[in-house]
Amino acid sequence: MKLAVWDPDEPFRRWRDALVQHASELGLAVEVIDATTEPDTQADFALVWKPPAHWLAGQLGLRAVFNLGAGVDAVLPLMHQALPGVPLIRLENAGMGRQMADYVAEAVLHAWRRMADYAALQSAQRWEPLVLPPRGSFHVGFLGLGQMGYAAARRIAAMDFPVLACTRSGQPRPTFEAPWPLYPLDRLDAFLAQTRVLVVLLPLTAQTTGLLDYAVLSHLPRGAHVVNAGRGAVIEQADLLDLLGSGHIASATLDVFATEPLPDGDPLWRHPRVRITPHVAAQTLVGPAAAQVMRKIATIERGEAPSGAVDLRLGY
Amino acid sequence: MKLAVWDPDEPFRRWRDALVQHASELGLAVEVIDATTEPDTQADFALVWKPPAHWLAGQLGLRAVFNLGAGVDAVLPLMHQALPGVPLIRLENAGMGRQMADYVAEAVLHAWRRMADYAALQSAQRWEPLVLPPRGSFHVGFLGLGQMGYAAARRIAAMDFPVLACTRSGQPRPTFEAPWPLYPLDRLDAFLAQTRVLVVLLPLTAQTTGLLDYAVLSHLPRGAHVVNAGRGAVIEQADLLDLLGSGHIASATLDVFATEPLPDGDPLWRHPRVRITPHVAAQTLVGPAAAQVMRKIATIERGEAPSGAVDLRLGY
Repeated sequence: MKLAVWDPDEPFRRWRDALVQHASELGLAVEVIDATTEPDTQADFALVWKPPAHWLAGQLGLRAVFNLGAGVDAVLPLMHQALPGVPLIRLENAGMGRQMADYVAEAVLHAWRRMADYAALQSAQRWEPLVLPPRGSFHVGFLGLGQMGYAAARRIAAMDFPVLACTRSGQPRPTFEAPWPLYPLDRLDAFLAQTRVLVVLLPLTAQTTGLLDYAVLSHLPRGAHVVNAGRGAVIEQADLLDLLGSGHIASATLDVFATEPLPDGDPLWRHPRVRITPHVAAQTLVGPAAAQVMRKIATIERGEAPSGAVDLRLGY
Repeated sequence: MKLAVWDPDEPFRRWRDALVQHASELGLAVEVIDATTEPDTQADFALVWKPPAHWLAGQLGLRAVFNLGAGVDAVLPLMHQALPGVPLIRLENAGMGRQMADYVAEAVLHAWRRMADYAALQSAQRWEPLVLPPRGSFHVGFLGLGQMGYAAARRIAAMDFPVLACTRSGQPRPTFEAPWPLYPLDRLDAFLAQTRVLVVLLPLTAQTTGLLDYAVLSHLPRGAHVVNAGRGAVIEQADLLDLLGSGHIASATLDVFATEPLPDGDPLWRHPRVRITPHVAAQTLVGPAAAQVMRKIATIERGEAPSGAVDLRLGY
């Protein structure tokens, strides 16, 4: 079985070594191909990160495509066009959940301990103790509760902050123990009104693009904080800036942006209450990712359906 | 029984209401006196925060003094002089442990996620993903493992960071489950060599004043981070600044200083890799503190010794 890897961000040999090792542990014979140097070799499976459309279009023998990372918005339209009917399969967690939990916990504690206010006082050389709100009223609201949101929400709940969540359906997923108030997306306004720190971990779909605009974000209580580690285009950045300017939103920690890299001169770069990281909240780890891909291939080879298949209708 | 409260930072009625409530729950009759307005009324017990020497010296009927806060360095010499033989009793945790755990967790995650590096990149408008060190090598070292250190260390260990600690004796305290490598203070250098984030939560004593100077801090590996939420004078601030300047220390989060408030113009205020908070990491909460003080008084009234008594020889 031939497995093509298209990942311009990682040395190919790291993928090859990890994939071969996990294949042999599962009793699978695999030939791993560097698609960036051998684009014409036809493969049975592909493991991709930002693949070009023309390469996918030439791989007509593919039985499944594995996407590195939890978000599939970039690959999905290419698949639709070039390989209709071929399943697109997402990585699930694969070491990314803990990273996301760290990122979100840092941002929530930064908000809770009023570190943006203390940074402003520090630059004015002012020594001024501030009051913390009661912990029981410092609700952390997760907009999106997939693998990443769930890992982060569990960490925040373990620190005794009240958690709530808003998902498309508002229904609990049977695989998650999520004993938190759940709102469906059509009650987003009520969810936001309860939320002191909004953690955005939604996939990018037709329904979520531009979802968080001025009017919607205004349902957050004054002084709320925003964390976005899902997809940048879910938030209207100009509206977020307006709400930061008025003080309605107290601070933002942003890992993702409508355009990445964030363009030179974008006003977000210089805003004193915005912290920017370059799409690093949860990065794919070669070892766990290779193990998961080979397990999913073994499932397919047994004639079963692996978990993580993207629902083409929902877009995630 | 008369209980005098000297606390210029808190409205007296908050203490009175909480203390009377907890006394009545324990079946104790108490008269609570505002010592800042009635300094001459003789009391049986005192609850103090930054009391003046002359007031303590006039309270010759005191059977015990309770200090608000975990650190007793300011009160101890006054007690020595004015009221030799009267026990000084510390608050133990009383809601401060969770606050300290939050403060330290924020700082450790800030260090782990390289947020100081990302802040520097942000001010240069540079989009540049950075590599994280392996988590298993990101050791968080607690210098001091009293009530505050223990609460914080448990939180950090629960997030899967490797923890180690250095205490005066290097011996585990029977009341703490601390399954971490423990170093005695005379192996401080070896402890520091293992530590990527140094969390200083020592009491201020003759032994700890100025303990962390240039030579000692140089045992930290290059790129280590420093968090001080114990007492400022444990660190030689000028030496810390030198090590920040050379990059040997990557960042510092400081809640305490040799002189508080931190003086105008102190170079720490403006250092881009120093975050300053005004001695707020763990603040006394009236409700839990009042409950604990009344429980300790009830213990004394039964003729027993309450926990938390300060060892005058050790100074904490």
